[in-house]
Amino acid sequence: MLAARDRLAGVANRTPVLTSRTLDAMTGAHVFFKCENFQRVGAFKFRGAFNAVASLDDAAAVRGVVAHSSGNHAAAVSLAARIRGIAATIVLPRDAARAKIASVERCGGRIVYSEPTVASREEIAARIVEETGAVFIHPSNDARVIAGQGTAALELVEEIRELDAIVTPVSGGGLLGGTALAAHGIDARIRVFGAEPSGADDAMRSLAAGRIVKPENPQTICDGLRSHLGASTFPILREHVTKIITVPDEETTRSMRLVWEVLKVLVEPSSAIALAAVLASPDEFRGARVGVIFSGGNVDLDQLPWG
Amino acid sequence: MLAARDRLAGVANRTPVLTSRTLDAMTGAHVFFKCENFQRVGAFKFRGAFNAVASLDDAAAVRGVVAHSSGNHAAAVSLAARIRGIAATIVLPRDAARAKIASVERCGGRIVYSEPTVASREEIAARIVEETGAVFIHPSNDARVIAGQGTAALELVEEIRELDAIVTPVSGGGLLGGTALAAHGIDARIRVFGAEPSGADDAMRSLAAGRIVKPENPQTICDGLRSHLGASTFPILREHVTKIITVPDEETTRSMRLVWEVLKVLVEPSSAIALAAVLASPDEFRGARVGVIFSGGNVDLDQLPWG
Repeated sequence: MLAARDRLAGVANRTPVLTSRTLDAMTGAHVFFKCENFQRVGAFKFRGAFNAVASLDDAAAVRGVVAHSSGNHAAAVSLAARIRGIAATIVLPRDAARAKIASVERCGGRIVYSEPTVASREEIAARIVEETGAVFIHPSNDARVIAGQGTAALELVEEIRELDAIVTPVSGGGLLGGTALAAHGIDARIRVFGAEPSGADDAMRSLAAGRIVKPENPQTICDGLRSHLGASTFPILREHVTKIITVPDEETTRSMRLVWEVLKVLVEPSSAIALAAVLASPDEFRGARVGVIFSGGNVDLDQLPWG
Repeated sequence: MLAARDRLAGVANRTPVLTSRTLDAMTGAHVFFKCENFQRVGAFKFRGAFNAVASLDDAAAVRGVVAHSSGNHAAAVSLAARIRGIAATIVLPRDAARAKIASVERCGGRIVYSEPTVASREEIAARIVEETGAVFIHPSNDARVIAGQGTAALELVEEIRELDAIVTPVSGGGLLGGTALAAHGIDARIRVFGAEPSGADDAMRSLAAGRIVKPENPQTICDGLRSHLGASTFPILREHVTKIITVPDEETTRSMRLVWEVLKVLVEPSSAIALAAVLASPDEFRGARVGVIFSGGNVDLDQLPWG
């Protein structure tokens, strides 16, 4: 984690922590919002991607990196590779949103299109790895990625003393796992919570079942929270996470609008869900000092959920 | 100005300064955004209102304060009065937006309704002053208000060294005048610019004519920028302001969307106009270190200008 922080120093933004009297009154807690929506590419994903890319030895790096993602990880890997001066190939589904394509292009990623299925994306990415020797960068299930994501919480815990709890969204578990390791590396008493859409509650079910449960046809407006835990993230969550709080999409939308109106910052639904989890669990957080990680702020302003 | 800063210490938020590689590239300058959209009540107006209310001696304060405004000044005076523990009466037009009414109520202001004309508002406010002895707090044309508004620039100039220029929106001239006094109190070489809607360009015409010109039927989406200069603000602008840059509403809308998408912060049109002015004047700002004051972030999310 400290090595990841050193790699990211001067490259990633050290993002600010915001507070609000109004939201403290509404939650009954003292909430500290770590604004990764202000991170490069607009999401914490840059931390993990850059740490992974920067960790490669020169012999591996020269062959480039590959990722598949329909979200922020694609732009994050592209930018990380450009900073290192190596090639990034991003496999995107043919029907990817224009904004996502533009974002990868802006960050210098080379796009290869797949059919709009996960199987097709994975197959094409695997073929590129085989043919070129490029290194595949997974969006969450990778120790270097997990360590990178954890640096956000590391900054938060060092800046805001005596936190009682931290809440992050959970999808593949990279952010939540990295956060848990960072927080417990400093203070094992900090309670760590994941916030997950009710319509994509595989992490909650995985921890309950004691094995990785994959989501079947996840339904949620949180487009960043549809993945599942992996072999690297699941054991960390199992050991370190107090609880997964599930949140219906309506509450996430309400919380997103609240953040925009009160804090005046743009967060995407996959971020707003963490505040929604705090609002939905007053008994859990009453009077506590709670860190909330706003994971990203990439939204389509023409498609707002309350529009 | 320093007295105003002392009064505001621990009461007003010390707002952050944001920067963006992307916006630097687009403007060809180094731009530092002072985020008064994160100020209490969501706008710089709290600074001037609180400084004015806090400046009253006890004998005057006990009779309360009065303001008329259809914008952020109304909520700012209400909150300032509540903090001081005195009454605030706000004259609002009968047809004021629900959000504005709610905002004043939330801040503890007592509302008196007027007909929807400036004349009616002024008449009712004057009558309340006469009957109750309450002190009228003008939104801009008042030395205490001007000094309060200037504290935002004071913080900016102290935090970001060697600024070449500062740009703020201009309406009544309280923010622009206070900014000019604060900046030139520290460094007389800083160029100070006002950004004004093309459809409400009375400040530009006033400085050109050498006398206060009032707007006739101002047309602009910048609902905070429809007032005119006053006897207190005009001479300050005349002495300290390099230039008023006028901006068509389309450019302000484009700039507002840019700020939301790139910086991930909500600004209202009356704030976005300051960045639009920088984008519209590349020769003026090329290579310069430019402070931009984001005056506020109160927008109706159901009525976005690109919707």
